[in-house]
Amino acid sequence: MKPDTRSRQSLIPASEWLAGYQRRNLLNDTVAAVIVTMLLIPQSLAYALLAGLPAEMGLYACILPLLAYAAFGSSRTLSVGPVAVASLMTASAVGAVAAEGTVDYATAATTLALLGGIILIVLGFFKFGFVANFLSHSVVSGFITASGIIIAVGQLGPLIGISIKGDTAPVLLSGLFDQLTEIHLLTCIIGAAAIGFLLFARYRLATLLSRAGCSENMASIIVRAAPILVMIVVIPLSAFRDFESLGVPLVGHVPSGLPPFSAPNISWHLLEVLALPALLIALIGFVESVSVGKTLGAKKRQKVDANQELLGLGAANAAAALSGGFPVTGGFSRSVVNFDAGADTQMASILTALGITLAALFLTPALYFLPKAVLAATIIGAVISLIDWDVIAKARRFALGDFVAVTLTLLVTLVAGVELGVLTGVAVSIGLHLHQTSHPHFAVVGQVPGSEHFRNVMRHDVITHDHILSIRIDESLYFANAAYLETVVYDQIAAHQNLKHVIIMCPAVNTIDLSALEALGEINLRLIDWGIALHLSEVKGPVMDALGRSHFLQELSGDVFLSQHVAVATLTATESADLAPT
Amino acid sequence: MKPDTRSRQSLIPASEWLAGYQRRNLLNDTVAAVIVTMLLIPQSLAYALLAGLPAEMGLYACILPLLAYAAFGSSRTLSVGPVAVASLMTASAVGAVAAEGTVDYATAATTLALLGGIILIVLGFFKFGFVANFLSHSVVSGFITASGIIIAVGQLGPLIGISIKGDTAPVLLSGLFDQLTEIHLLTCIIGAAAIGFLLFARYRLATLLSRAGCSENMASIIVRAAPILVMIVVIPLSAFRDFESLGVPLVGHVPSGLPPFSAPNISWHLLEVLALPALLIALIGFVESVSVGKTLGAKKRQKVDANQELLGLGAANAAAALSGGFPVTGGFSRSVVNFDAGADTQMASILTALGITLAALFLTPALYFLPKAVLAATIIGAVISLIDWDVIAKARRFALGDFVAVTLTLLVTLVAGVELGVLTGVAVSIGLHLHQTSHPHFAVVGQVPGSEHFRNVMRHDVITHDHILSIRIDESLYFANAAYLETVVYDQIAAHQNLKHVIIMCPAVNTIDLSALEALGEINLRLIDWGIALHLSEVKGPVMDALGRSHFLQELSGDVFLSQHVAVATLTATESADLAPT
Repeated sequence: MKPDTRSRQSLIPASEWLAGYQRRNLLNDTVAAVIVTMLLIPQSLAYALLAGLPAEMGLYACILPLLAYAAFGSSRTLSVGPVAVASLMTASAVGAVAAEGTVDYATAATTLALLGGIILIVLGFFKFGFVANFLSHSVVSGFITASGIIIAVGQLGPLIGISIKGDTAPVLLSGLFDQLTEIHLLTCIIGAAAIGFLLFARYRLATLLSRAGCSENMASIIVRAAPILVMIVVIPLSAFRDFESLGVPLVGHVPSGLPPFSAPNISWHLLEVLALPALLIALIGFVESVSVGKTLGAKKRQKVDANQELLGLGAANAAAALSGGFPVTGGFSRSVVNFDAGADTQMASILTALGITLAALFLTPALYFLPKAVLAATIIGAVISLIDWDVIAKARRFALGDFVAVTLTLLVTLVAGVELGVLTGVAVSIGLHLHQTSHPHFAVVGQVPGSEHFRNVMRHDVITHDHILSIRIDESLYFANAAYLETVVYDQIAAHQNLKHVIIMCPAVNTIDLSALEALGEINLRLIDWGIALHLSEVKGPVMDALGRSHFLQELSGDVFLSQHVAVATLTATESADLAPT
Repeated sequence: MKPDTRSRQSLIPASEWLAGYQRRNLLNDTVAAVIVTMLLIPQSLAYALLAGLPAEMGLYACILPLLAYAAFGSSRTLSVGPVAVASLMTASAVGAVAAEGTVDYATAATTLALLGGIILIVLGFFKFGFVANFLSHSVVSGFITASGIIIAVGQLGPLIGISIKGDTAPVLLSGLFDQLTEIHLLTCIIGAAAIGFLLFARYRLATLLSRAGCSENMASIIVRAAPILVMIVVIPLSAFRDFESLGVPLVGHVPSGLPPFSAPNISWHLLEVLALPALLIALIGFVESVSVGKTLGAKKRQKVDANQELLGLGAANAAAALSGGFPVTGGFSRSVVNFDAGADTQMASILTALGITLAALFLTPALYFLPKAVLAATIIGAVISLIDWDVIAKARRFALGDFVAVTLTLLVTLVAGVELGVLTGVAVSIGLHLHQTSHPHFAVVGQVPGSEHFRNVMRHDVITHDHILSIRIDESLYFANAAYLETVVYDQIAAHQNLKHVIIMCPAVNTIDLSALEALGEINLRLIDWGIALHLSEVKGPVMDALGRSHFLQELSGDVFLSQHVAVATLTATESADLAPT
């Protein structure tokens, strides 16, 4: 009935589960590792190609990062490695500084991982996880959907045997149409069969397996292992039928062996150019990963700590950079598979790393025969689940601001690319938030008869006094709304005759800054000029403390009242004796 | 006793005062115009040189802009023209694209005015005046102080007869020290005498004049007219003693005549490069101008409308661009002089434009002999009042956020220039605001015995119930604090045993966005999992409306209560009958 309440002090959360590790856990973790490895092999190869990199870099980007996350990450079941969106973002960022297929291109991708790792570790070290909050739900949803579309469209090329380049939807689509005549029939058939099977697996197989008496967990695992089934069928077929001579583009030679363990060849210029993309990839990856980690953690009452996750993912990316990989993060489908397959701890990830190592050592000759169309199908099958149109409809129903943010992020990402898309989304979210709080809700209030409550005069039948104007401000006061506060007060004063007192009621004013203090001071001075006393009521503790550190309270022509009721009672009581309240 | 409450519908506010214009008004406005003209001649020449432009452009930048503002501006007494900070910003922006003294340089300055004018008019047309709110009091104060320092340091060069270039304090200072040996003695003496007299006028003369029986208004006018007195004394001296042959740098030939009325020679590249500086100059100018206009308007109960001001200043800048000028805005000292000299309406500005026209036609031969050191002294005398160290101390006392914003803006402006300074300030203000609201204040609350009030359990002796946890959130819920909301709720649940109900009390939640809705949904689901019901209390109307547009209320395991009191009363009453509340 209770969540996990242990406080996590250690920098190495792995120490916790290592302490109580038992034979039963090892069995569970081994089963999970075998299954995740089978999922991860096609995925990591495919995402390396999506990032424009040699296939083996996908394997390299799994091994050390899995170990690093196992040591430093706070989730027990998250599985890290290359993911679709980060690979697309990598292709976009690296494509801007180097030509695909060159050593510079691979170096830039490794540098991107290094930078991302450093950024995440620094943010985690200073507990700056909150910066990820600036990526609102709307922005992330719009961005992920757009990325899914861009990836799917881009993979239509290899799926039908043509090669299209670009990182925006219009460029990819026009490339696709230009080369439609160059479709390679056999590739197209292989691609169509693969995607057909994967979609069948995703939408039908689980039901069929359940009917056949398979447990839900097992069905889910088999469904998600579909890509490796396709590989197991297609590779021998490709080898024996000599697909290569028939013109089917194959993955080709993948060097066998372990990743080189070396510091990437860093240039200052590269660091400068890649800093912003690295930050965006790191933050988007972090947000997605934490969301997966939290969802899984909740099911087992395990707490995922955002700042520890920054360290874990940072270490994983740094490890990727040191072993010839590229940016990694926690993947949704592989983590779910890991969880469903019964993983207890990050030992499953350590064993998965072992599995991928074995693949890198012994499986690469077989990969030669794998058609690229199968990997394209794997990617399309994976990213279809990223495309979520519902969020647009939901945002539209819910609030205009969210609708604008999600739509703009989606469109700008599709048309102008991933970086501009994220940046636009963040800028729009922040701008809308500031705009909204720059015109806070306010109400002229009066007393509910027979009570101490004060309510909006427009909505309730309340008691007001001719010479007293009470305005309730429903927002913290800060620079973006300081000018509006003045406007509201002056406009309301202009609309009321014979005023002697203005009371600003502050029950929802949680903070106040210097700009707002200046505005209050200005209002006070002007009201003195007009012979009207300014009072405050229901000022919260922190706001009162702040006012006390300035000269405002000494200069205030009226008083500060603990409650609006006391304010009005006092001012009406003294009225007869006090004709000139200033 | 009452402010001006007329609604201002006309796009041309001048129509209002023109309707009731009388002989008495004309007399007042004429007197003010004569005095402002005397102040404006040295100022406009000096600010043109500060901007790196030929002296006559200063005069040109007064004539049409004064007329344009008179027609479209909403302040009756604001006086527009070149000002110190905008001139410094112009020099910085234009210096980045052209060499001083070239035609390109002048064209760029004119383009800057055109761009600024268009930006202001567009913002005014769409009533987007709120964007100026993003320039917080701290940022503007820090920026203006830094600009004052940079200008003063830069003018020390001409004051002592050397020429230093640069737009940051370190560059100017090192330039000054490098050339200290090249001081020109006579120039130095003229400069020292001029600055000495101006400072004497500023800090002593008013008192002396008052003692001599001069009215306070008259004394203030004489003090502010000090620069023209210096000119009247120095120009004949320079002519008869032939300062030129003695090596004193003079203003030199100023072409006589009216400004050319023509569209600036626009290039697309120039527009692109100057767009950001133009925006910053326009916004800073707008903020400063509105602040002057409001201060003066308040004294005569005249309302200054921010959106109309955007149109007025936009028209003034467009007019400057069309007549060979450079960016202009409302000047503080000249507007105060205008006001003190008794100006009733913008007719004073129209007459001032006439005065400057006469100066451009007939006074330019005399300007030949004006030492540049006198103009440097005029500038230094004017900008000293911009330097305000108090704001740092005030911000430091008041709030850490404001202190950080003002200090960073000041330092970055001094060291890295005006543009980066403003941008840093805005980014820091917004970042700090988001950071602050991303960790909103919350309190676990209990009932004050014998009342319906609920207060913080940490501060008050209140009644709580073992199975009910009540958390009051003191901030609107949006993307920046959605994650924190989850953390707070889970941490508090972890700290309490035997919970059956969690009530989130929302009296200060003014708005909610999709990210926060997702977080609430997530909390609800997880609490269902843990067998705890989630309730809300004191939800405001707009927030309730928003929740009603989503599925949240249907999925909510508990209820929404109008008041916290009713919530606790209901839940404790049903408790005995209902052991499993979910």
